[in-house]
Amino acid sequence: MQRTNFGDMACSIARTLDVIGEPWSPLILRDIWVGMSRFDQLQADLGISRKVLTERLNHLVEQGVIDRHPYDNRPRYEYRLTPKGTELVDLLMVMTAWGDKWLSGQAGPPVLYRHHACGEISHVDLRCAHCGEPMHAGDIDPLPGPGSAVA
Amino acid sequence: MQRTNFGDMACSIARTLDVIGEPWSPLILRDIWVGMSRFDQLQADLGISRKVLTERLNHLVEQGVIDRHPYDNRPRYEYRLTPKGTELVDLLMVMTAWGDKWLSGQAGPPVLYRHHACGEISHVDLRCAHCGEPMHAGDIDPLPGPGSAVA
Repeated sequence: MQRTNFGDMACSIARTLDVIGEPWSPLILRDIWVGMSRFDQLQADLGISRKVLTERLNHLVEQGVIDRHPYDNRPRYEYRLTPKGTELVDLLMVMTAWGDKWLSGQAGPPVLYRHHACGEISHVDLRCAHCGEPMHAGDIDPLPGPGSAVA
Repeated sequence: MQRTNFGDMACSIARTLDVIGEPWSPLILRDIWVGMSRFDQLQADLGISRKVLTERLNHLVEQGVIDRHPYDNRPRYEYRLTPKGTELVDLLMVMTAWGDKWLSGQAGPPVLYRHHACGEISHVDLRCAHCGEPMHAGDIDPLPGPGSAVA
């Protein structure tokens, strides 16, 4: 498959996506998160075809993670994260932490996060919502849930 | 694009991937995480073509997130998560939390996580690694990092 080499971008999210999946949708969410809200901004930043960007934006609107707000009379639209989409950015923050650690190399992280609450450069840590202790893959047992028989 | 309808699976990871990206690699990692280590197990569980599964496994081995261990004389291989791959499962746990909340509907979560440390059914919470307070998209300022000039 011919495509942009996401692994070469100075972005831990793009580098992580180069390892684990199709990158356009998360990169569109990243751009909207950092304030690029208009079609032409997104298209220029990502170097994506207008057709593919239109498809991805329509899909993300249908899924309720972004919505459209008209901004002039033609009409044109700005795209904004919904609450559902804003919570999806958690995933991007965890991608960043992993990509920073495993894919940044000598150059170091492309982006740093300053946490409002403490003012320090930091990164996300995964904790148990119940007890607050670390919670990672090796710390849990997966059990069948109420929705397990749906498929 | 014709493909499996991941949104219909009783799996919050598959449902999340149906929203944000190409799903095979994360689903392969999920299966290896829960103990399906052999090619035929993965192929049967995912219903993926042997060609695509071979490509994805080769890619994940090259990226250092899984490795191969021979298990008989033919040779055949088992696939296991490396430390780099095990940390990538954090991403799957966050996908699960989001999918459980936004995509489970009436049926409820397909899978529950029991945390070893406290013994309770729980989910991951994102905290600042520095101060321990909640850390989400709206709680940080992204700043240029040392690796920002690489691309």
